Amino acid sequence: MTVGREELTGALLARLARRSPAFQHSVWDAVDLLVAGAGPETIFFGNGNPAPERVPYEAMQRASQRTWEQIGELPKRIEYGEPEGLPELRDMIAERMRARGVTATRDDILPTTGSQQAIDFLARLMLNPGDAVVVEGPTYLGALQVFDAYEVEYIVAPVDDRGLDVDRLRAMLDARTVMPKLIYTIPTFQNPTGVTMPLERRKALVELAREREILIVEDDPYCDLWFDELPPPALRSLDDNVAYCGTFSKTIAPSIRSGWVVAPTGFQKMLAIMKEVADINHDKVMMRTVLNAVPDFLDEHLVGSRELYRVRRDAMLAGLERHMPAGTSWSQPAGGFFVWVTLPEGLNAIELLPFAVERFGVAYLAGEWFYPGFSWPEASRTLRLSYSKHPEARIEEGMRRLGAAISAALETR
Amino acid sequence: MTVGREELTGALLARLARRSPAFQHSVWDAVDLLVAGAGPETIFFGNGNPAPERVPYEAMQRASQRTWEQIGELPKRIEYGEPEGLPELRDMIAERMRARGVTATRDDILPTTGSQQAIDFLARLMLNPGDAVVVEGPTYLGALQVFDAYEVEYIVAPVDDRGLDVDRLRAMLDARTVMPKLIYTIPTFQNPTGVTMPLERRKALVELAREREILIVEDDPYCDLWFDELPPPALRSLDDNVAYCGTFSKTIAPSIRSGWVVAPTGFQKMLAIMKEVADINHDKVMMRTVLNAVPDFLDEHLVGSRELYRVRRDAMLAGLERHMPAGTSWSQPAGGFFVWVTLPEGLNAIELLPFAVERFGVAYLAGEWFYPGFSWPEASRTLRLSYSKHPEARIEEGMRRLGAAISAALETR
Repeated sequence: MTVGREELTGALLARLARRSPAFQHSVWDAVDLLVAGAGPETIFFGNGNPAPERVPYEAMQRASQRTWEQIGELPKRIEYGEPEGLPELRDMIAERMRARGVTATRDDILPTTGSQQAIDFLARLMLNPGDAVVVEGPTYLGALQVFDAYEVEYIVAPVDDRGLDVDRLRAMLDARTVMPKLIYTIPTFQNPTGVTMPLERRKALVELAREREILIVEDDPYCDLWFDELPPPALRSLDDNVAYCGTFSKTIAPSIRSGWVVAPTGFQKMLAIMKEVADINHDKVMMRTVLNAVPDFLDEHLVGSRELYRVRRDAMLAGLERHMPAGTSWSQPAGGFFVWVTLPEGLNAIELLPFAVERFGVAYLAGEWFYPGFSWPEASRTLRLSYSKHPEARIEEGMRRLGAAISAALETR
Repeated sequence: MTVGREELTGALLARLARRSPAFQHSVWDAVDLLVAGAGPETIFFGNGNPAPERVPYEAMQRASQRTWEQIGELPKRIEYGEPEGLPELRDMIAERMRARGVTATRDDILPTTGSQQAIDFLARLMLNPGDAVVVEGPTYLGALQVFDAYEVEYIVAPVDDRGLDVDRLRAMLDARTVMPKLIYTIPTFQNPTGVTMPLERRKALVELAREREILIVEDDPYCDLWFDELPPPALRSLDDNVAYCGTFSKTIAPSIRSGWVVAPTGFQKMLAIMKEVADINHDKVMMRTVLNAVPDFLDEHLVGSRELYRVRRDAMLAGLERHMPAGTSWSQPAGGFFVWVTLPEGLNAIELLPFAVERFGVAYLAGEWFYPGFSWPEASRTLRLSYSKHPEARIEEGMRRLGAAISAALETR
């Protein structure tokens, strides 16, 4: 009995794992469609890419050339091995963590394929189907994609202008008998809101997590991109019960896929074996290239990046002030890439989007996409704007268009 | 109530996911200890690294330099995006797949972090806890590490000198009511045995899998390293119900982590979203470097690689012939890196190993490590030798030492 092609494909698709629906849709498909359909004149404030002019390709090219010379000198450098990652790179990252108040040694650090892989690894280590996870509402949508694949229950902790509302989270946990396994938070220049958690609240959060025996996953991709003053120290500096996820994606370039995790005591060895199981060992060419590049140029490079993004943030805040109709409000980011906008009452950001694109040539990401299920009616008036990629004049023009779109939508109500 | 540091770590470790034991031990730890304790004069026939002199670092350095120039010309090339992978790389891989008899287009191919990640992705897509998986006995131990993490039941299909024994697998499946979700096989120059499945058996295997509605995962890392004649066509060339995993790890270098999967119809989009969830997108620097390098040099490079490994295989087979005591037998690989040795009756390869290392300065991997649970009493007399990394004289000396170790062990019985 031979099974026909369509029949077999159908049979196999019916036998997929229970987690597979997490891989059947991506919110980015909708975004890509929107952008593709929008035409080149549309100003897209959607994605979280760094500014193209801040990609240090010459420094990376030199470092990469040096890397291949080093491999030529000792080809062992490109063999299998070291799931823990290049020791010298881990030393360098440990040293850099001191700027976040974190004391770490090479043994605490595992290089990962961006911080995305670190989040996935921590989820894989902790989560059974049905376990609960605390996420901020709103939060980074790539983390939601990860947690969805572990078939979790979400506890959505509200975010205000000082980040995750710890008192409200405490009350939510008080109402439960079974505690969540982990709390995922972006306390510094949060994605998508741009807000930062002050030190006192950080202390309260780690205290709460410790009391309820919940692991904190601290995602900190934007910490080096502060504008006015250094951000508060990392949660990880306050407590060992924090898995800190770092990355060079925003400071060097996204697609070098170079991140790391500083894991709690007792977790590091398991994460290294997980790395071995997942993809054997981290890319030794890129680990060595980053090691060759960073000590020479990154700190100086960051001075210029901060200045560029600060100017762009200022342009966006000024543009919002100038062009938004009454009833619109927005966050005041002190670093990072994002401003979170709340539309006047009666408007809906998802409904507004095609109208804004087609009639006014401006696009953003709807706020609801940053919640579990990519849907959250309470957040229907919110949207995320990224200022990282556009020069000031284009930001100003984009805010003019957005303001006009909102005003027009208000009139047609 | 503040929880103390040790207390909390203990509490968190008690809350790990059910899959976490898969990340608590690695068989490579035992191997590393063995090698570290052995001293530099020990000849280690253990790992599956390519020969250091076959790492084409100059070609890769040139390609890498060109890559960073291309990024400089258009920094968008290093932004986030394209979870499906670089289209031109996928075209190139599709073209190269024709040598395996496989018809594919860019849409069928997803670049992955080595074939290891492809195996993990296919498992993640298909497997719920308790599902059954067919593996060859023995098989690649990295694949066992992957499947362990999905909490599977193993069906171990025996391997003879023509690869997976399809008739015996059929009988094993006949005895079951619930079919396994997938069959993991390395039909060409198998790891660890070195044997190759002839065409007729390949046809029988895909027919069996189709009949029972089981996905085949074909791992094919060694196909380009044939010595005498081209290997039979890939399983994937015979049936769409095969997820083919390829890699440049053995032909360029392991730690560039450049592999791919050719997925069945209907799977490709889900795997691309899984890539996005796991690590956002594949390393664009390495994808472009491989694309810049491969068309210019790989086919010519492979001619030299085949010659080098063929000479080493010949040296190992001649050394085995010359030095093994009666009652020892071994496989006859026609390509790849490995010979599978069966010791005389009464010996045990795990027990022999420290004796061989300490007294004779020779090391190998025990055959039992290539079975589920890294333990398989029926295979206690087997071991794997790799000839890929050692020059002929060292292989000859290693076989002399191994023969002496086996003979000495036989005498002390």
